[in-house]
Amino acid sequence: MNEFKLIELITSDVHSSSEKLRCGIGDDCAVIGGSDCDLIVSTDSFVEGIHFKLLHFTPSSLGKRIFNASVSDIAAMGGLPKFFTLSLCVPEGFGSDRCAELYDGLKREAFDKKTTLIGGDTTKSAELVLTMTVIGEAASGRTILRSGARPGDALYVTGTLGDAALGLACLDADSPDDFARPFVARYRNPAARIDAGHWLASTDHVSSMIDISDGLLADVEHLADSSGTGYEVALEALPRSEGFEAAAGTLGLGADMLMLTGGDDYELAFTVKEDRVEAFEGLLKGSNLPFGHAVTRIGSMTGDVKRRVALDKAGNPVSVTSGGYVHSI
Amino acid sequence: MNEFKLIELITSDVHSSSEKLRCGIGDDCAVIGGSDCDLIVSTDSFVEGIHFKLLHFTPSSLGKRIFNASVSDIAAMGGLPKFFTLSLCVPEGFGSDRCAELYDGLKREAFDKKTTLIGGDTTKSAELVLTMTVIGEAASGRTILRSGARPGDALYVTGTLGDAALGLACLDADSPDDFARPFVARYRNPAARIDAGHWLASTDHVSSMIDISDGLLADVEHLADSSGTGYEVALEALPRSEGFEAAAGTLGLGADMLMLTGGDDYELAFTVKEDRVEAFEGLLKGSNLPFGHAVTRIGSMTGDVKRRVALDKAGNPVSVTSGGYVHSI
Repeated sequence: MNEFKLIELITSDVHSSSEKLRCGIGDDCAVIGGSDCDLIVSTDSFVEGIHFKLLHFTPSSLGKRIFNASVSDIAAMGGLPKFFTLSLCVPEGFGSDRCAELYDGLKREAFDKKTTLIGGDTTKSAELVLTMTVIGEAASGRTILRSGARPGDALYVTGTLGDAALGLACLDADSPDDFARPFVARYRNPAARIDAGHWLASTDHVSSMIDISDGLLADVEHLADSSGTGYEVALEALPRSEGFEAAAGTLGLGADMLMLTGGDDYELAFTVKEDRVEAFEGLLKGSNLPFGHAVTRIGSMTGDVKRRVALDKAGNPVSVTSGGYVHSI
Repeated sequence: MNEFKLIELITSDVHSSSEKLRCGIGDDCAVIGGSDCDLIVSTDSFVEGIHFKLLHFTPSSLGKRIFNASVSDIAAMGGLPKFFTLSLCVPEGFGSDRCAELYDGLKREAFDKKTTLIGGDTTKSAELVLTMTVIGEAASGRTILRSGARPGDALYVTGTLGDAALGLACLDADSPDDFARPFVARYRNPAARIDAGHWLASTDHVSSMIDISDGLLADVEHLADSSGTGYEVALEALPRSEGFEAAAGTLGLGADMLMLTGGDDYELAFTVKEDRVEAFEGLLKGSNLPFGHAVTRIGSMTGDVKRRVALDKAGNPVSVTSGGYVHSI
């Protein structure tokens, strides 16, 4: 049974007993309506050996990474992270020095993002397990859900794709070369797109949004499932970093597959309403964007729910060998 | 390094970047001020082999238990639990049937307590680790902190003490006798004192409160530390269940030590302002209490910070061999 099937089973008969709950299980975050703003809540666990290898990180960079991976869910709803709790389950040999370093990296990043550690738990365990719950805020009724896409809506992504997966491949291949450095950095130190997500939610043009943690196609699949649409992605439109294809080639990896299925980028995928695309493109050309990275149109949502394809330059569907990270449990 | 020392280290330089945070790390919950009510947030992790043995529980009763253990922190602030997230880290052999049963027990209990599962995470791990974050509500400015006790305040507890520790001892001794049943039930199925905590917070008489999870003395120690007081506990005043002393004796355990240091009761310990004791006792005698269990005065808070004692019938301090559960990591 994989992760998604289990979540489906678990959540099949959850009934809300609060009229304040605007969005429950099934999106990036839950949304609790308040009188002055909405609260958005997300929980993520990171298990040594499943989600990360200790040898790839310093304790401080691991703390920074799990902070960004966690608040990325808040960014994907268009909210701003405000508070978080951390549960730290630590194996005997990890030691208090490394615990302190991990917290230090995490707290520095949190301070930088105006987010406060408000509680948590520490306990012994067989392996390192970190669980973070983030509470964010968004203007009332302004959170962007996964379910808002409609046929004809344009599909966009922030930043570049596949970099983190390539970085992880470089680490696993023990590749010390210069070409590996920027990709390894993207894997080790992802930056949650908080400013971009918050701005996108403010434009009135965006109909759905998700963060890319499992891989582009896997996450666009979630948008399509929640919205009841299909999608078409144009392979040649996918934004890639300078030197990406050459670096992937050096490791014997296909650049296209990395961009379509590589996880851990923590970029945002979102849709723009069909009749707002022109206005949105106009905003993108403006000089007042509160973020520096690219925003790129990569396809469209379709009315045919079964049409879920990546198309090559000639318009032919490409065969995708991996559907993203599906953690089997 | 033990759990409390590590938490101290971790939290030593947490600066809040939000004026909404009324109480951060160091109490049972964090308190986030809102315009219509305060939100209270608490996170707890439960690790197989550290916090529980799988063989002591059905999956469903384990789910019920971690729900109550988690919301007990909300009860200890005088709040009502509303929402929770659950992260479930599951070892390979646990199986989806047992996962579903665990969630079932947890969701039934949550439904009964008008609390809604709003999110979480599921992942593989080496051992079963459950992390629950509960979000509760309390009337603005009405949460009861650990730090409000003053010298002369009266110390009370709800229910009876030591039952859960005795129940666990019965389970560990594989004691199938009838006398063990009620104590095993108290260990397996603790009931968070939500109604009592909420009522106590509404009386205007209660100055500090905590839930008894680590053992009476260990938790009263937290009240005294946070409030800058000492305390005196009268051994003969400690409320005990019918047959408690005989059952403890059968297992060769000292009843007094079980009541002073046994964990997992999830009763509430609280203080009543010195000049409100009479009014409070009057309320207790009324017929409209929204809960059925006892409330018992067991001692007082003292001005001498160093005076932290349990006294026998003759008024002599007893020597306490265990200071409650201190999880060493």
